[in-house]
Amino acid sequence: MSNKTKRFLLQEEEIPHYWYNIQADMKNKPLPPLHPGTRQPLKAEDLFPIFCQEVSRQELNQTDTWIEIPEPVRDRYKYYRSTPLVRAYGLEKALDTPAHIYFKNESVSPVGSHKLNSALAQAYYCQEEGITNITTETGAGQWGAALAYAAKVFGLEAAVYQVKISYEQKPYRRSIMQTFGAQVTPSPSMSTRAGKDILTAHPTYQGSLGTAISEAIELAQTTPNCRYTLGSVLSHVALHQTIIGLEAEKQMEMAGEYPDMVIACFGGGSNFGGIAFPFMRHKILNGKNIRFIAAEPASCPKLTRGKFQYDFGDEAGYTPLLPMYTLGHNFAPANIHAGGLRYHGAGTIVSQLMKDGYMEAVDIRQLESFDAGMLFAQAEGIIPAPESCHAIAATIREANRCKETGEEKVILFNLSGHGLIDMASYDQYLAGNLMNYELTEADIQKNLDEIGTLA
Amino acid sequence: MSNKTKRFLLQEEEIPHYWYNIQADMKNKPLPPLHPGTRQPLKAEDLFPIFCQEVSRQELNQTDTWIEIPEPVRDRYKYYRSTPLVRAYGLEKALDTPAHIYFKNESVSPVGSHKLNSALAQAYYCQEEGITNITTETGAGQWGAALAYAAKVFGLEAAVYQVKISYEQKPYRRSIMQTFGAQVTPSPSMSTRAGKDILTAHPTYQGSLGTAISEAIELAQTTPNCRYTLGSVLSHVALHQTIIGLEAEKQMEMAGEYPDMVIACFGGGSNFGGIAFPFMRHKILNGKNIRFIAAEPASCPKLTRGKFQYDFGDEAGYTPLLPMYTLGHNFAPANIHAGGLRYHGAGTIVSQLMKDGYMEAVDIRQLESFDAGMLFAQAEGIIPAPESCHAIAATIREANRCKETGEEKVILFNLSGHGLIDMASYDQYLAGNLMNYELTEADIQKNLDEIGTLA
Repeated sequence: MSNKTKRFLLQEEEIPHYWYNIQADMKNKPLPPLHPGTRQPLKAEDLFPIFCQEVSRQELNQTDTWIEIPEPVRDRYKYYRSTPLVRAYGLEKALDTPAHIYFKNESVSPVGSHKLNSALAQAYYCQEEGITNITTETGAGQWGAALAYAAKVFGLEAAVYQVKISYEQKPYRRSIMQTFGAQVTPSPSMSTRAGKDILTAHPTYQGSLGTAISEAIELAQTTPNCRYTLGSVLSHVALHQTIIGLEAEKQMEMAGEYPDMVIACFGGGSNFGGIAFPFMRHKILNGKNIRFIAAEPASCPKLTRGKFQYDFGDEAGYTPLLPMYTLGHNFAPANIHAGGLRYHGAGTIVSQLMKDGYMEAVDIRQLESFDAGMLFAQAEGIIPAPESCHAIAATIREANRCKETGEEKVILFNLSGHGLIDMASYDQYLAGNLMNYELTEADIQKNLDEIGTLA
Repeated sequence: MSNKTKRFLLQEEEIPHYWYNIQADMKNKPLPPLHPGTRQPLKAEDLFPIFCQEVSRQELNQTDTWIEIPEPVRDRYKYYRSTPLVRAYGLEKALDTPAHIYFKNESVSPVGSHKLNSALAQAYYCQEEGITNITTETGAGQWGAALAYAAKVFGLEAAVYQVKISYEQKPYRRSIMQTFGAQVTPSPSMSTRAGKDILTAHPTYQGSLGTAISEAIELAQTTPNCRYTLGSVLSHVALHQTIIGLEAEKQMEMAGEYPDMVIACFGGGSNFGGIAFPFMRHKILNGKNIRFIAAEPASCPKLTRGKFQYDFGDEAGYTPLLPMYTLGHNFAPANIHAGGLRYHGAGTIVSQLMKDGYMEAVDIRQLESFDAGMLFAQAEGIIPAPESCHAIAATIREANRCKETGEEKVILFNLSGHGLIDMASYDQYLAGNLMNYELTEADIQKNLDEIGTLA
């Protein structure tokens, strides 16, 4: 580690009062989501049976640039925000790079990740609309823990379907959700038709976010006064996460620097969008020269190797059809430890921005991600979540490039969460038991062929 | 949880520049530690073979009220300090109490507990004195994780003996220490004479802090350029921890209130002293009416049921003889999940203050501690370490008393750490598998009789 430390925090009054809605500024708006039955462009009302009304409207809002953060949500943000912006002197030293590396430390939230930023908003809107029960899915459990917490804050009952492989690999995330009072079921389960169907077809299936989403939606639709909530992919989730980038913008100003690159790991896109969109605004509006890099796992490479097309957000096809980079909603990702990145598609906003060249993507193999996480832990004293390790790995690649060229670039990445609940994964890494997963072109094409053109 | 939140943070320049040495202000100074061989009062030089010189001097310093925090240590403090002072509106609401409850949230440190405050200081002084290797013991692993981190900051090699029962109950604390590069051995081990002796006598012994200390000291004495470090009990550790109370004093002022009671859990006393001493100063110097309550486990009740006498700090009798409330250095505490509180004695300062009536102690059974932790988690959204649950339980008792009497007392307690690495314990609690441990007078007397009068 380095002895030098520099950490930037905002005063309470400087914590943003508005989220940033990039859809309003985009030159090419995302194509509309389509109703899964009629294949017609979706209206907000079509989403009301699944989501609460306010987030349904936010989802399709392409006109309002700034959306006010409700005071009760902002009050709860103050409990852990602003999160620190940290100059990573230790990592710079370890890499011997001329690059200036900064990270936004979202791991300080009471549930250990950025997920709370949207969970609080969604739970609040549900409570406001008189909803009493919420359901969701979770991979690694970061989102589920955040939602369980947020439900408790706003007095709602929460039911969470957790991807079975994560339920088993990370048993303590389940305990955290239960400690916050949520009901947790491993997915696929026999409690829904969607779960039953897939267990019948593949009895040993270890689950995926796509399947868990199907189960959670089904439960929401069959439970009175209940709505479904989602932790990534959708536009309103990315909207809520922009608090990260908006804070970071002010904090970079305090540091007297501006990022040449903004990097985040990529599951469905809300963590990436959260830190990237407020900076990307200046690229869209003023052509500012900033690179945006999404770091996805090589075993689930929708941005680098997927196809841009309409696809379902879930395994069973309950969701609207979304225009996205996808590996196919039937894609079963390898059992990597970064459970939060095991999702087949990218959100519609990010997909459009990717298509339009505003951002780029890299894929990171599991071992490279943990090598990076280990180096970061020893250099900065924070053990990163396996998901965040992907952002760190991409950052290290860029910092090493700077070392080669001698360029003093400024890199900002999002440390989306800590890995304290993922120590079993680090244990496997330390014991040399982790592996990479290879994916051939045929593997990828097979799934896409199977689903064909959906709209 | 409550929607209302209030959190107080200090500006960087307000973070204290000095630790508070209560020994200088005490009317009755602690009796001197005695050399284990000669039984003569100890001089700082006698400690030099075990500890680095600066902390040896701090240990016996009864004259300087304020000890300057070295700039490199303070720089590293800034990485996570000030820690928040939080008004526990959620807990107040859950208890329906007129009391105003505040907690100091030390769980936000990068290792999840207050332990880092002293680990950084000790590692820094070792590095300054040219020491290259440090050893220590750890119970639950909070201290070991902190020391592993601090060693990495200041470029030292760390070897940690972890109490075997905790090593098994909390495997991921081991992984954390290893991730930070430390070597971790379960204690008792066959790597030291002290460990071998006790394993020969009791082959199934689950370990205790007393035994692990013996092993760590022995390793320090048989390794070149190596010193031992301790995470609690000793006066210099409590000194470093006073940063907690010094910050809390300023933050309570920001809140416009002053505590009627200060509460902390109690293992060896450094966490308690850390938050209590800066406030107790005003009780000693100006007779200010504040109650100080140490919350210890009912299964390890040195303050409430132990005896004030000279005793060893460790199982094998390597340490100086300390004047302390003790259950006997041969006391084997029950396997409660609050591993950090499983220690037979209280530090010399706290023992003297207890004797002189400046503070009081309560004992908390395991189930009451977890009931309290669970309530706190759901009310405040932070899962507390099993050790901290004891402070919360004592706080709840007092808050309930306020409810009975209608008094609007101000209670401040220290949330020494989070429980994210202790979810296995919560799992046991949720499954109804946790139990209380009863300790008869005969149990306690037996150990004390066995050691007799040592000085």
